[in-house]
Amino acid sequence: MKFKIRFLPMGVEATVDEGTNLLDAASEAGMDLNSACGGKGTCHKCKVLVEGASKTQGAEGLDARSLQEGYRLACQTWALGDLSVFVPEEARVGAHKILDHHRAAAVKRLSPMTRVRQVTVEEPTLTDSVGDFERVLRVLNIDEASVPLSELKRLSGLLRKNKWKVDLVTSAEDLGNSVVSFSDPGTRNVGVAMDIGTTTVVLSLVDLASGKLLSTASEYNRQMKAGDDVISRISYAEEGGLAELRDLVVSTIDLLLKEAIASSEESIDKHDITSYAIAGNTTMIHMLLGLDPKGIRYEPYVPVTNVPPLLHARQLGLDGNEHALVHCIPGRAGFVGGDITADIVASGLHKHDSLSLLIDVGTNGEVVLGNKEFMVACSTSAGPAFEGGEVACGMRAMDGAIERVAIHPETGASYEVIGGSRPLGICGSGLIDIVAQLFKAGTIDKKGRIQDFGDERVRRTDQGAEYVLVPASAGAKEIKLSDDDLANILRTKAAVFAGCRVLLRSLERRMEDVERVYVAGGFGNYIDIENAVTIGLLPDIPRKRFKFIGNAALGGAVQCLLSAEKRKEAMEVYEALTYLELSTSSSFFDEFSSASFLPHTDLELFPSVAKSLEK
Amino acid sequence: MKFKIRFLPMGVEATVDEGTNLLDAASEAGMDLNSACGGKGTCHKCKVLVEGASKTQGAEGLDARSLQEGYRLACQTWALGDLSVFVPEEARVGAHKILDHHRAAAVKRLSPMTRVRQVTVEEPTLTDSVGDFERVLRVLNIDEASVPLSELKRLSGLLRKNKWKVDLVTSAEDLGNSVVSFSDPGTRNVGVAMDIGTTTVVLSLVDLASGKLLSTASEYNRQMKAGDDVISRISYAEEGGLAELRDLVVSTIDLLLKEAIASSEESIDKHDITSYAIAGNTTMIHMLLGLDPKGIRYEPYVPVTNVPPLLHARQLGLDGNEHALVHCIPGRAGFVGGDITADIVASGLHKHDSLSLLIDVGTNGEVVLGNKEFMVACSTSAGPAFEGGEVACGMRAMDGAIERVAIHPETGASYEVIGGSRPLGICGSGLIDIVAQLFKAGTIDKKGRIQDFGDERVRRTDQGAEYVLVPASAGAKEIKLSDDDLANILRTKAAVFAGCRVLLRSLERRMEDVERVYVAGGFGNYIDIENAVTIGLLPDIPRKRFKFIGNAALGGAVQCLLSAEKRKEAMEVYEALTYLELSTSSSFFDEFSSASFLPHTDLELFPSVAKSLEK
Repeated sequence: MKFKIRFLPMGVEATVDEGTNLLDAASEAGMDLNSACGGKGTCHKCKVLVEGASKTQGAEGLDARSLQEGYRLACQTWALGDLSVFVPEEARVGAHKILDHHRAAAVKRLSPMTRVRQVTVEEPTLTDSVGDFERVLRVLNIDEASVPLSELKRLSGLLRKNKWKVDLVTSAEDLGNSVVSFSDPGTRNVGVAMDIGTTTVVLSLVDLASGKLLSTASEYNRQMKAGDDVISRISYAEEGGLAELRDLVVSTIDLLLKEAIASSEESIDKHDITSYAIAGNTTMIHMLLGLDPKGIRYEPYVPVTNVPPLLHARQLGLDGNEHALVHCIPGRAGFVGGDITADIVASGLHKHDSLSLLIDVGTNGEVVLGNKEFMVACSTSAGPAFEGGEVACGMRAMDGAIERVAIHPETGASYEVIGGSRPLGICGSGLIDIVAQLFKAGTIDKKGRIQDFGDERVRRTDQGAEYVLVPASAGAKEIKLSDDDLANILRTKAAVFAGCRVLLRSLERRMEDVERVYVAGGFGNYIDIENAVTIGLLPDIPRKRFKFIGNAALGGAVQCLLSAEKRKEAMEVYEALTYLELSTSSSFFDEFSSASFLPHTDLELFPSVAKSLEK
Repeated sequence: MKFKIRFLPMGVEATVDEGTNLLDAASEAGMDLNSACGGKGTCHKCKVLVEGASKTQGAEGLDARSLQEGYRLACQTWALGDLSVFVPEEARVGAHKILDHHRAAAVKRLSPMTRVRQVTVEEPTLTDSVGDFERVLRVLNIDEASVPLSELKRLSGLLRKNKWKVDLVTSAEDLGNSVVSFSDPGTRNVGVAMDIGTTTVVLSLVDLASGKLLSTASEYNRQMKAGDDVISRISYAEEGGLAELRDLVVSTIDLLLKEAIASSEESIDKHDITSYAIAGNTTMIHMLLGLDPKGIRYEPYVPVTNVPPLLHARQLGLDGNEHALVHCIPGRAGFVGGDITADIVASGLHKHDSLSLLIDVGTNGEVVLGNKEFMVACSTSAGPAFEGGEVACGMRAMDGAIERVAIHPETGASYEVIGGSRPLGICGSGLIDIVAQLFKAGTIDKKGRIQDFGDERVRRTDQGAEYVLVPASAGAKEIKLSDDDLANILRTKAAVFAGCRVLLRSLERRMEDVERVYVAGGFGNYIDIENAVTIGLLPDIPRKRFKFIGNAALGGAVQCLLSAEKRKEAMEVYEALTYLELSTSSSFFDEFSSASFLPHTDLELFPSVAKSLEK
């Protein structure tokens, strides 16, 4: 039996087998729904209005009012007939603000992963009847080269068709100096740099002949239907979903390629793509390559590989030139991946004499401390609070998210909404602002508990208290922060800060010794630095030491795409980096506990905050 | 419609589609029929007795008596009903004497294409959680290595199953020093050396750990249904048969592998095979790789490649370990292939100060002249006379072939038959003998024409004269040699000798300067050297200068399998060798004309023969 599922207000449809759940049906209709728990029915992010569903399906855990209004959890509702489904904006993975800018790739010498050369061979004669392939190599002045058999099969035809001219894609010397493919004369040479995150995938097209950035596109990782964090994804893979996860990320990349090609000012064909440089966390890379990620989940957290071999597009199921080279930037550990290596390469941390700290807060929070002599890194399992997880009104930085909050003693609370429409929730930068502002206003105490019951926006509930930022109004839901939400936010920021402290301790250095703090990833460019210091997420050091480096993982990938030197640096960073497993660190728990206050139990670490609080 | 075709006396059957010709039906029944013309109906080698065939089919060109007896050409007869087919021995590719011995591979230092190492990795811990693959590389003390993605996928499971032990196949340093595959501990390491000839395929299994030869097997190349020589095969490929030819040679190799494994004293599994070194003429290599051989056929005779890239067994459709490396020995030209390079490497010609000549008479005849300073080679298109082609009673050196002939003035003709059974025809060494003996006896003149009509064995025919070696008797056909047969034999020997002369001229050297004549291939070990000199096939120089090196192409392949030095030498030979295209040689036609006599127009070139004739 097949049923037709219609999704409103978009008006898209999918025809699915009986028993398909609505999360999958939506995905098939080309529209992803939020699903932080991976379809387990616990996160309630996929709440949709279903017409025609039975009363018993998808209702578990929903409150009486939601049920009465016809809401169901998409992940717990199965197609047993034709259905019409209304998707509220909060349930949609839709318009968004993905961090996709990165510093222009500064590479000294252009030595891209692949080069395209037009070759004109001498026409063979009876006295010069060497093979077609050797005729090409002779022009390149080499004796022997590796070449894919399927390309060799095409060579003679191409040469004769094009009057002894052929375009030749070769790999850089550090990548084997081999023949990648042949094509008709006049091929462009386009490379793809990519940052595959748990939440978002960002991709840039780069002209490999000039080093010029052609276009960039970003999308949520379609794997999100299997959960928000890497653990949910690995768990999904363990239950037999690895191939599906691989297909989902590949389809995300395909979509991005189309978008990036369409948005480029220059005319590009997908067959012009000759190489890919990919930064990604270790789990994402495993899934892209179809490697079993299970080892990353369980102690001692061992991946199949840290340094994936050079691959070809065909092996990953990527569209276009099947022989295009795929270089995955090496990652140090199961939870410190190639994205962090790319961050480091892009930041230059590994080249300074003085000490730098690098903080990348995405779905996880990774911290690196070091200089050109030594580097140490850890992963803090910070949790997704700043990406909209674990906070009831939290959401990703997309249209409808409150991204700025200010609270004045006189005028009260004010906020800014992405896209300017009615607010749907609060994203990471907004959460940092609101916590800092409530703390400074005295509405919450240093333990993050709501205290000021004189404030009209504060109300008591069965579970404690909550602060209402936006009251409910006709057609718009209430946006608020509860004690539980605050506890989760504090846990996240404490984990990141504790990570920094443990690294400093391991090198017997102090926060003041840190000359630079690189803030990369997730929300780096949108946060208010004073507020971030106020809540104790970032250290209280001179503000000019902070460097916001945007999506540095993507920037590092662009550099690796363009430069043999950067590829070598990435390998050197991989080799030089020491990974510190926090679960074996005796001091992490203490540091975490101390950091679970606003800004910290040790106010001497936050002198400017302490001074401001005194006022 | 399907029909059942039964082949007698073997009693094998094939069920085939309506319209299948009997040549293909026989092939399907696992039995190859002779077919020198490639199924064109001109060579008459596939003459079979068909019960149930229509009178009009397969009859064209057959004489009245054959037709009356029920003979048909298998290649011109199509299954239009169930048939019973009797296959006379002459039509069968059957028991045979394929040259498969070669000198023991003398390699100084064992550095095989692939090595198997058992690796025990350290069990991961929280403080040592590097990836499984890097754990393996650490034991090998290297940072990075290429590895097939599909093998990487298997690694983690193998390590955990086998308590952190794994067998690792790696390629030699000159072949990229990469990881070929992983397997359970206790894998053997077996290599395959192969000589793929137009007529026969010979294969040796070699223990790569010790260099010991395990077993050898040989079979006719199943491509023979598409014709005896490379031109017929290329023509067959041009008509859309390339994939079929590839399948045929691969099925020949599969069969040989089974035979070689079965005949080895040691227990071998096909998955133990980790590498292949293949010598073959350029056309055979093209067909094995699925490369279009068309360019080799037409002026200026350009192959797709002389130096095929390193490949994997899977790419060729070979059974066993899909990642096993396949190294094709480079060949100089369309008609001087990797088999000749392997001949040279095995002979050592390329290492001597003094001048050597190498003659390889197989289906073609290739000649090399040179020393460690320079080498020049040509292909003589000698024709298949010495392999049973172009001679009415000619046949391959298999059971029933006359391989030795002596003619005494008093006792008359005597002969030896391979297998000792009744004679079916004459093979190459027998042809050399009979021509030399008839010439010395005065029965044929120096132009190769039958003259002595006093001899009772000589009779006149409409086409000239013929010499009856074996008269017809009950159940056995007459075996004879006609003027036409003799002309073809003279053409073949003249081409080879003219080739030698042209090479000498090109270097301004004389036959006396040649210190060694290596005789390799096809029939090298079975011919009578005096008779070969008498007819002018081999030069008249001191007999101790002749070195019979057997199947040197296979010997060279074994060396390349076992030694990086020999692989390097093969490449150096390829680079040093100059190819002389005889069709552009002004002197070849003159030399060929002069050599088309017994032994030669210039008797000064054959002093010992001249002396013997004077007697």
